[in-house]
Amino acid sequence: MNRRELLHLTTATALASIVPSLAEAAVPDPHAVVPQYDIFELTLEGPSSGNPFQDVTLTATFMLDHRAVTVDGFYDGGSTFRVRFMPDTVGAWTYKTSCNMLALDGRTGDFACVPPRPEEHGPVRVARSHHFAHADGQPFFPFGTTCYAWVHQGAPYEQMTLDTLKQAPFNKIRMCVFPKSYEYNHNEPEFYPFPRPTGTPLATPGDTARFDPAFFHHLEMRIAQLRELGIQADLILFHPYDRWGYSSMSAKTDSRYVRYLVARLAAYSNIWWSLANEFDLMKAKSTSDFTDLLHLVQQIDPYQHLRSIHYSKTMYDYGSPAVTHASLQTYDFASAPMWLASWNKPNCFDEIQYEGDLPRRWGNLSGQEMTRRFWLATVSGCYATHGETFLNHPDTVESEDDKIWWSNGGKLSGTSPARIGFLRKLLESTTTTGLEAPSDPYYLNAVSLSGSDVKAAPKAILYYFDQHQPIQYTFPLPETASYKAELIDPWDMTIAALPGTHRGKATLRLPARPSLGIRFTLA
Amino acid sequence: MNRRELLHLTTATALASIVPSLAEAAVPDPHAVVPQYDIFELTLEGPSSGNPFQDVTLTATFMLDHRAVTVDGFYDGGSTFRVRFMPDTVGAWTYKTSCNMLALDGRTGDFACVPPRPEEHGPVRVARSHHFAHADGQPFFPFGTTCYAWVHQGAPYEQMTLDTLKQAPFNKIRMCVFPKSYEYNHNEPEFYPFPRPTGTPLATPGDTARFDPAFFHHLEMRIAQLRELGIQADLILFHPYDRWGYSSMSAKTDSRYVRYLVARLAAYSNIWWSLANEFDLMKAKSTSDFTDLLHLVQQIDPYQHLRSIHYSKTMYDYGSPAVTHASLQTYDFASAPMWLASWNKPNCFDEIQYEGDLPRRWGNLSGQEMTRRFWLATVSGCYATHGETFLNHPDTVESEDDKIWWSNGGKLSGTSPARIGFLRKLLESTTTTGLEAPSDPYYLNAVSLSGSDVKAAPKAILYYFDQHQPIQYTFPLPETASYKAELIDPWDMTIAALPGTHRGKATLRLPARPSLGIRFTLA
Repeated sequence: MNRRELLHLTTATALASIVPSLAEAAVPDPHAVVPQYDIFELTLEGPSSGNPFQDVTLTATFMLDHRAVTVDGFYDGGSTFRVRFMPDTVGAWTYKTSCNMLALDGRTGDFACVPPRPEEHGPVRVARSHHFAHADGQPFFPFGTTCYAWVHQGAPYEQMTLDTLKQAPFNKIRMCVFPKSYEYNHNEPEFYPFPRPTGTPLATPGDTARFDPAFFHHLEMRIAQLRELGIQADLILFHPYDRWGYSSMSAKTDSRYVRYLVARLAAYSNIWWSLANEFDLMKAKSTSDFTDLLHLVQQIDPYQHLRSIHYSKTMYDYGSPAVTHASLQTYDFASAPMWLASWNKPNCFDEIQYEGDLPRRWGNLSGQEMTRRFWLATVSGCYATHGETFLNHPDTVESEDDKIWWSNGGKLSGTSPARIGFLRKLLESTTTTGLEAPSDPYYLNAVSLSGSDVKAAPKAILYYFDQHQPIQYTFPLPETASYKAELIDPWDMTIAALPGTHRGKATLRLPARPSLGIRFTLA
Repeated sequence: MNRRELLHLTTATALASIVPSLAEAAVPDPHAVVPQYDIFELTLEGPSSGNPFQDVTLTATFMLDHRAVTVDGFYDGGSTFRVRFMPDTVGAWTYKTSCNMLALDGRTGDFACVPPRPEEHGPVRVARSHHFAHADGQPFFPFGTTCYAWVHQGAPYEQMTLDTLKQAPFNKIRMCVFPKSYEYNHNEPEFYPFPRPTGTPLATPGDTARFDPAFFHHLEMRIAQLRELGIQADLILFHPYDRWGYSSMSAKTDSRYVRYLVARLAAYSNIWWSLANEFDLMKAKSTSDFTDLLHLVQQIDPYQHLRSIHYSKTMYDYGSPAVTHASLQTYDFASAPMWLASWNKPNCFDEIQYEGDLPRRWGNLSGQEMTRRFWLATVSGCYATHGETFLNHPDTVESEDDKIWWSNGGKLSGTSPARIGFLRKLLESTTTTGLEAPSDPYYLNAVSLSGSDVKAAPKAILYYFDQHQPIQYTFPLPETASYKAELIDPWDMTIAALPGTHRGKATLRLPARPSLGIRFTLA
């Protein structure tokens, strides 16, 4: 049984025999076995008449000892209804459905939740105020990329994106539910979220009273594939780059769509909810509409996945409890200490412009500059998101078949991803708790790991000198511990040990060229 | 007669014979001849008893037809009193002194002001709100450097600085009147502004009731030498890096010092008054003390030389009429459009950190970054000031004999001055009126020359792409004029013509590498 199959576990007892030893250890004679943080899916037959999307209200309550978790089910077309549940605790779970349709009400069953797959660490949560960790405690340092509309490019291109992601250094991807209509994005998608009866004009959303299950099956498959690759799906629920009317639906339709999406997707461990991309460009909605939608997700998501919203020009109030972290569009890293202190939340610099050569200011950074911005975000105690925008047809302003990574996925050709991968490995080998920037802005580019004061003898200290090139530098190390030093070249991707051990005010001779890092670790 | 000699013109009639044709053309039988914007110096004998610095109040009124300009004279030691005057108009001037001492009162005379030396264009003024020009209309685009204490290093080193400046691309220098005591600046100066009677402790200002003329003779010689080189002396009157007590004198002494300095130096055409360096770090004075001193200079300077004040952390209110331009310590070029609009004055980014390798954040920029900051300042419609801080003894944190350009002068070894010179020549060959940044911040890095709107068909348009590397770009040129384009490489210092002529929305293929400029000029 491969993992894709495991995702589609049903109540059929046959499946229990596949992992018998684990199953037997957990509970006697279970009807199904689900690894921790995977999905238990209950499939039920029900009525297809009327509009089951709206007529049927199905929930299931999952119980482990005295604990009960209620989740929403959903109609999946035909006579199929489903309830998905992501168990977070090993043990013998039971469930009971509740429904306004007799056929689906009071159905009971059980399953065994067994230890997780080796690579599965559970959903990502906020940890230590400014950082993230998986539910099992495994540190998670986001190194994201951006492929807004990659799930709307057709199977061959989408497979190419997955193949690229498998080799790439990214562990988070920003992606939209809805298809995108913007520069370099003109294709019609294969799937639409709402049914389009014959005669539906191209530029309309179709029958928003219903959903098209094929759309969601496809989306779920892609999210599951990302999960297989260890990539968080930073899923964007609304966005302004729209020619179908998805950005200007009624509040009622928005709310029904959000409920349906959460019912279907919340059980995927790698989901992050990004309520919108550039919410402030969506003229049909107000800021408070988005706050209402954030509160709705907060209210209906049984797992409390990470929640944020991304802006273009007018920053959302990230101090609000409606969001778990900031999703910034800026490269003003100098403000990070203030924002971290003020919001006391992780800061994700989710749009810092893109490496590429587009004739757009947001899409033509050099690989060096993208690398630099990742370093600045990192040593500010924050996280950054990559994007790539190389033009495929440089002699035309825009071509129908331009496929740009930032929106369409495909292949990467930039020089920054390798350096971002180097930085990710460096960070993961340096700390398990995340970097904390000292409060003194003079030390913006110098970071200690376990507190805001280097006097506290952190396990490691990372400096980034950016455009500065001192030929020697006196580092204010703690007096109470001894450190060895390494010279980091973020572009050449080298780590070279420097001689000696150091404590207190330590003066080191440096190469007097820009864009270098220094790492101190306990000797 | 060389120019140094010309600077010391006296009333001796002998000198009139040197430029007889001009002199005769101007007035018949003049007693002296002074080129326009040079110095007429009247030397008088007077009493040396008591304290002539304070006891004698000497002025002279210079008249041309019905115009009268009154200037302060000053005591220069021994029995010598002087009055200096910079005539701004060709013609037959007369004068008459006024003094509370009979011996110096009512002295009269005349001189002929003749056309200026070829390289002399008169004092620099604010022009077209955001820019500068000499009194004769010649454009002046400041490309400054910084040698705070260069006049306090002794003759051999000071000559080395002058030799360097003769070859360097800079036309303005930031320099202090008082000696400096700071990192890499520990020497005692040869000259002190106030007499130091036997027994004066080293760390005190001496007898502030008097001045030491030798100090001022030396300073004037250096300012005159800068004038010969076509370099504006951005003269800093007060600064906090002091161990002699010059930064904490009484208000009365400060005022007497400022009056004495203005009386001696205002006649030098290349003077800019910078009331202080980092005024906000001078604990013995308040902001209003400096405003009072600015008003004093405004009141007593007959020529209304440029006036500003430089801060460290707390910006002076550059909207105030007390200052003619902003003297900024920041590299926040993105704020330039706002400041230009708000203050409606030239913006000089006078401290944007320094090229070097010092173990100080302010002193270890790469040459590339210094070059970049000059370009950003320039295309923002502003001006920048250079400084260089390479350590001479890299293995010691600080050595007594470290001589750093930024403070001591000497020789330049960085890679940015050549590029700054290239940019200066480029600017001077592009515009006579200065660059105006468009008001749309989206076009921060693109500049049109003769208005804030490219639709107005400027004579030239300069773009700088910084870290952006578009492979093609659509430039919004005016429809009403045709332009040729050149590719500028600010680092390689090349200007390459691009094919064709362009108008309206013009898409050009570009090299897809960062840090390039594009110049459009009327075809």
